[in-house]
Amino acid sequence: MGNTFGTQFRISTWGESHGAGIGVVVDGCPPRLPLTVDDLQHDLDRRRPGQSRLTTQRGEADQVEILSGVFEGRTTGAPIGLLVRNDDARSGAYDHLKDLYRPSHADFTYDAKYGHRDWRGGGRSSARETIGRVAAGAIARRLLAEVAGIDVLGWVSRVHDVMADVDPGSVTLEAVEADATRCPDPTAAAAMTAAIDAARHDGDSLGGIVTCVARGVPAGLGAPVFDRLEADLAKGMLSLPASKGFDVGAGFDAVSMTGRQHNDAFVPGPDGPVTATNRSGGVQGGITTGGDVVFRVAFKPTATIASAQDTVTVDNEAVSLEARGRHDPCVLPRAVPMVEAMALLVLADHWLRQRTTDVLPH
Amino acid sequence: MGNTFGTQFRISTWGESHGAGIGVVVDGCPPRLPLTVDDLQHDLDRRRPGQSRLTTQRGEADQVEILSGVFEGRTTGAPIGLLVRNDDARSGAYDHLKDLYRPSHADFTYDAKYGHRDWRGGGRSSARETIGRVAAGAIARRLLAEVAGIDVLGWVSRVHDVMADVDPGSVTLEAVEADATRCPDPTAAAAMTAAIDAARHDGDSLGGIVTCVARGVPAGLGAPVFDRLEADLAKGMLSLPASKGFDVGAGFDAVSMTGRQHNDAFVPGPDGPVTATNRSGGVQGGITTGGDVVFRVAFKPTATIASAQDTVTVDNEAVSLEARGRHDPCVLPRAVPMVEAMALLVLADHWLRQRTTDVLPH
Amino acid sequence: MGNTFGTQFRISTWGESHGAGIGVVVDGCPPRLPLTVDDLQHDLDRRRPGQSRLTTQRGEADQVEILSGVFEGRTTGAPIGLLVRNDDARSGAYDHLKDLYRPSHADFTYDAKYGHRDWRGGGRSSARETIGRVAAGAIARRLLAEVAGIDVLGWVSRVHDVMADVDPGSVTLEAVEADATRCPDPTAAAAMTAAIDAARHDGDSLGGIVTCVARGVPAGLGAPVFDRLEADLAKGMLSLPASKGFDVGAGFDAVSMTGRQHNDAFVPGPDGPVTATNRSGGVQGGITTGGDVVFRVAFKPTATIASAQDTVTVDNEAVSLEARGRHDPCVLPRAVPMVEAMALLVLADHWLRQRTTDVLPH
Amino acid sequence: MGNTFGTQFRISTWGESHGAGIGVVVDGCPPRLPLTVDDLQHDLDRRRPGQSRLTTQRGEADQVEILSGVFEGRTTGAPIGLLVRNDDARSGAYDHLKDLYRPSHADFTYDAKYGHRDWRGGGRSSARETIGRVAAGAIARRLLAEVAGIDVLGWVSRVHDVMADVDPGSVTLEAVEADATRCPDPTAAAAMTAAIDAARHDGDSLGGIVTCVARGVPAGLGAPVFDRLEADLAKGMLSLPASKGFDVGAGFDAVSMTGRQHNDAFVPGPDGPVTATNRSGGVQGGITTGGDVVFRVAFKPTATIASAQDTVTVDNEAVSLEARGRHDPCVLPRAVPMVEAMALLVLADHWLRQRTTDVLPH
Repeated sequence: MGNTFGTQFRISTWGESHGAGIGVVVDGCPPRLPLTVDDLQHDLDRRRPGQSRLTTQRGEADQVEILSGVFEGRTTGAPIGLLVRNDDARSGAYDHLKDLYRPSHADFTYDAKYGHRDWRGGGRSSARETIGRVAAGAIARRLLAEVAGIDVLGWVSRVHDVMADVDPGSVTLEAVEADATRCPDPTAAAAMTAAIDAARHDGDSLGGIVTCVARGVPAGLGAPVFDRLEADLAKGMLSLPASKGFDVGAGFDAVSMTGRQHNDAFVPGPDGPVTATNRSGGVQGGITTGGDVVFRVAFKPTATIASAQDTVTVDNEAVSLEARGRHDPCVLPRAVPMVEAMALLVLADHWLRQRTTDVLPH
Repeated sequence: MGNTFGTQFRISTWGESHGAGIGVVVDGCPPRLPLTVDDLQHDLDRRRPGQSRLTTQRGEADQVEILSGVFEGRTTGAPIGLLVRNDDARSGAYDHLKDLYRPSHADFTYDAKYGHRDWRGGGRSSARETIGRVAAGAIARRLLAEVAGIDVLGWVSRVHDVMADVDPGSVTLEAVEADATRCPDPTAAAAMTAAIDAARHDGDSLGGIVTCVARGVPAGLGAPVFDRLEADLAKGMLSLPASKGFDVGAGFDAVSMTGRQHNDAFVPGPDGPVTATNRSGGVQGGITTGGDVVFRVAFKPTATIASAQDTVTVDNEAVSLEARGRHDPCVLPRAVPMVEAMALLVLADHWLRQRTTDVLPH
Repeated sequence: MGNTFGTQFRISTWGESHGAGIGVVVDGCPPRLPLTVDDLQHDLDRRRPGQSRLTTQRGEADQVEILSGVFEGRTTGAPIGLLVRNDDARSGAYDHLKDLYRPSHADFTYDAKYGHRDWRGGGRSSARETIGRVAAGAIARRLLAEVAGIDVLGWVSRVHDVMADVDPGSVTLEAVEADATRCPDPTAAAAMTAAIDAARHDGDSLGGIVTCVARGVPAGLGAPVFDRLEADLAKGMLSLPASKGFDVGAGFDAVSMTGRQHNDAFVPGPDGPVTATNRSGGVQGGITTGGDVVFRVAFKPTATIASAQDTVTVDNEAVSLEARGRHDPCVLPRAVPMVEAMALLVLADHWLRQRTTDVLPH
Repeated sequence: MGNTFGTQFRISTWGESHGAGIGVVVDGCPPRLPLTVDDLQHDLDRRRPGQSRLTTQRGEADQVEILSGVFEGRTTGAPIGLLVRNDDARSGAYDHLKDLYRPSHADFTYDAKYGHRDWRGGGRSSARETIGRVAAGAIARRLLAEVAGIDVLGWVSRVHDVMADVDPGSVTLEAVEADATRCPDPTAAAAMTAAIDAARHDGDSLGGIVTCVARGVPAGLGAPVFDRLEADLAKGMLSLPASKGFDVGAGFDAVSMTGRQHNDAFVPGPDGPVTATNRSGGVQGGITTGGDVVFRVAFKPTATIASAQDTVTVDNEAVSLEARGRHDPCVLPRAVPMVEAMALLVLADHWLRQRTTDVLPH
């Protein structure tokens, strides 16, 4: 279990890194939405390995096939089955990992849980699993654009100790995509690239932060008390491989403010109250204010490093591991479409949920 | 919707701050668990208002009644209905709030969502709703102690800029409960008390951080890919009133480490592999390693402050608000049992879920 | 688990026959619906024991208290907590049942499942549990009347071998309520009354059939493939105590028709296609046609009889049981509001679900 | 939505009759279960079209591919993705159906619900969708055999007015499979074959009843109150194409019995109480007694007939339809593996659910 996300816009992913392929079933997408393979491929290409020298060189085209749920260019309301075949699955490259546990990977924990594990490239715990999320997120993106005018954009705001200066209100997709780092601040992007190159050279790896904004979100999305928008976002983000933290609005920085400094005063807006500031990050009591929803996700440095590490075998004997497989020295650039996908899925879900609330006249 | 949490150990809360009372239904608690009102009351008393001068003076005994699911001192497997009546519900004190929106409260967003709102003391968005969570968490605590030897303990690790120095491996409930701040570092506790007193005096409020540890957790709990243990913890924590951030293990601090610095080497342990360090926070790939699960939750400064604030009326007209109700200048001490409750609920859920995985012989 | 029903209009019931009371939490009811205790009490009174000499004489007023979710006469969108206290719970009357298993009751099976059982009057398996369903169904009734013009009406169409002749298209609530049997065919009602009286006199009990119709249901409700409207109705009905069968439209009688005889020809209607006949029972492919939804539920004869029966003790020893408690010689009259409640819950759920489908322009 | 069934052993199906293929994702299957394509293909072959002259001649091999979740011959605990490509999808054969609604099919209702419909061969409402159920059911079958010794067997007990005489306690798979009708009573089977041939000859179709038994079911499976075993079975069965009714044990026949006639007396058995008779059908209060679970499913005559029928166009104009596609004159023989599949899924689900109840010592 645990392979399904969402309630009204619900996805179920399946597939392993070195099995036949990766797929997802999307249930709950409203009928009559125009949808083509191209809508999906764009985000998949942003997630794809080998797109720049900053990422793993595994050669996967990640071409998606729509198996069901779309007829004559429109969704039918039936579940949408999507499939991406694995092409460059060099399982042999993982033979030396069969009998040991890589540090800070899921090898040991999967064995502890399941007693049987697909050890080829991480199996189910591989970031390849996120193909299904990104493809489903692209459908959510199309839906939200079509019916709600909501758009979601993420970027790399930090790599190791390099911090970017970006305005969430005005940053553009073009600016994000202009650099292989997906950092829209060119000075920071250059420093990040240098840092990543240095880490790779050193057989090491780096972590960082993705910041993400949803703009055009109407007031009223999200649901008390457990399904607060930020709670669902937090779950979505912490379900991403290598993520270790989440905060919304001022987040952890709110801790060093006082109430007077943190509170967002309301002022009269043209269509109703708006907040003069946005330290809340666009949510109050779990429900959107109508302001931009802004949040951050912390990613740890890639667990796979090109250096010798102490570990143990499946028989609990000490051994030294020298990594050989293909990997990213820093997952941040490819994490951006993953973060966006989870945000899109949460927003599509809550947008549809709100429909059942808007039944009786206000 | 959104009032239910968990899959196998599932709670549904109901009730408003100034309605008849607050309740919860717990479904999925295994039968034959010894359970009394005292088991529940202990944690409720830690959450209760008026327990010290640091907290709101609303006078609620918060006595819980077990309405169902327990017979002759043991659970029956039937849903456990719990009820706490509201006693000191001075609705009149909120009359002046009926027609305006308090900054950084859920007043405006609930109106935006529902078009109809119980404005007395926050209604459903009040922290009184957490009574149900804490009572249910106490059942989970009893279950986990009985069947799994898992214990969960939280403490205030930071208030504003005062940071405590606490060892998650050895901190005790007695040390936490020794001070009204629930900070087990006496020096920090004294400084926190002074800071909170000063903020109250100044008509202001403070935020902070609760750190929480689950000890005795076996390897193998949690579920890929969306229901990673840390994903469910993140959702639980971000569903708490006033919470703004969550991280696990090194969390946001992992960002400034390299892979070599962050990876937890495995070493042979007496019963299988163990990690030499615990930067992962006890989870890898969403599944427990057998080490302590350690995480942090950031809380914003209380939105209610005893100072004039700019805001708008329900008719979108500018107005000044001077707070009058009873409130906590810092929610941190009372947030501790809430954080523990959500962690207990997540762990009980995953502990039960693991039962369906352990079916065929290893 | 298993105490929750529905997805968008979702109820969770709790409580035992001889515990503190019976309750339900209704989550998902849209905000702004006018709702009073009277709306609920009417259906509860139809379900109540002691309403006629045909039913058990247990003296319960079954007065419901609305604990949450309603403010100033309207729903708020928050979960609605309802409570009915048990008054006439003569547990002592059940002392002789503590150590044995009543035939065709749930005594043995609950013990087999839970290993711990509230043996007072059936505990959780008592038909008193349906109080929560009937109260929740009354909310669904109000909602469906208000927003959709759907009404649901059931009646006793058969008791033992007495069959009624009733037209589902025109039968009225007044006709159903005119007789204590809830059979709107006066001749059959008289025969049913005689049969029930004779069975009681003989220390025996009778079963029968409730037929139910939903009128005013628009085309398009229900969801392929597992959540067909009739599948959800079937589940709801088979979840009622003492029910043993369900069919929709021609149902089991369709077996002896040919396709030519059974198919419902479409004819042009004023607002689109309509069926000339309704052997389908208002559903095709799990989705409503716009015709009346008509279905039947079979109930077994009451398991409690005033005659000696062979059974075994909890220690697996043969024993003779002579029933003494209060009971209905025929559950059919009181089953009518229960059947209606489950149908109302299913329809409200699917009506709300359809809202997420009707998003893009047709 | 509505494409997912089960809670612990959960399947999600996707795919249309004339799209790329049909698939299913099975989540919750325990790890370490031996599983091969052959385990699945056996039941798929029993469901396959063209297996005898009694069934449609659509030429589909229905070869299944396991895309994920199985490694080195055993399940891993990851979701199992299964795919069957559509081969013989002669969409052209359906061109004449594009603009009209076939009587008693889902054409009109899907249009009413979705406003956009895959009209090729019924699209999602086609019985081809059950491929996913049958494949998933085969996994459940393997699991239940391996861990619980439960076996499930269905047969055709009635076609139109031909009734079979079969003993649920002793009937064998060999006897069922001995005849193309899947009726293990040879005399009845011959009469059924004659009746089906006559109906086909006459351009008509027939309905019937599948009876099904689950043997080896331990006492204690099923969950009060909404998830009674028979409630979940009822939902599963009424979700099958063309099904119109369900009953368990004496079912609708219980109506004409009295309590004395219907009650199942308990007698001491070697390992605890057993019932002397089994009118309950192996369930009491929704939970299994340890006796055989026996139930019936009524299927309507096939809606597609080779005769002219009155219907309307999508523009609501009267038109005459003469059927041309390939179809079964009687679905009963192929319905048997579908009924078994749904029963297997329900039992696997409840068997896993019971694991979370059996936690504390009895």
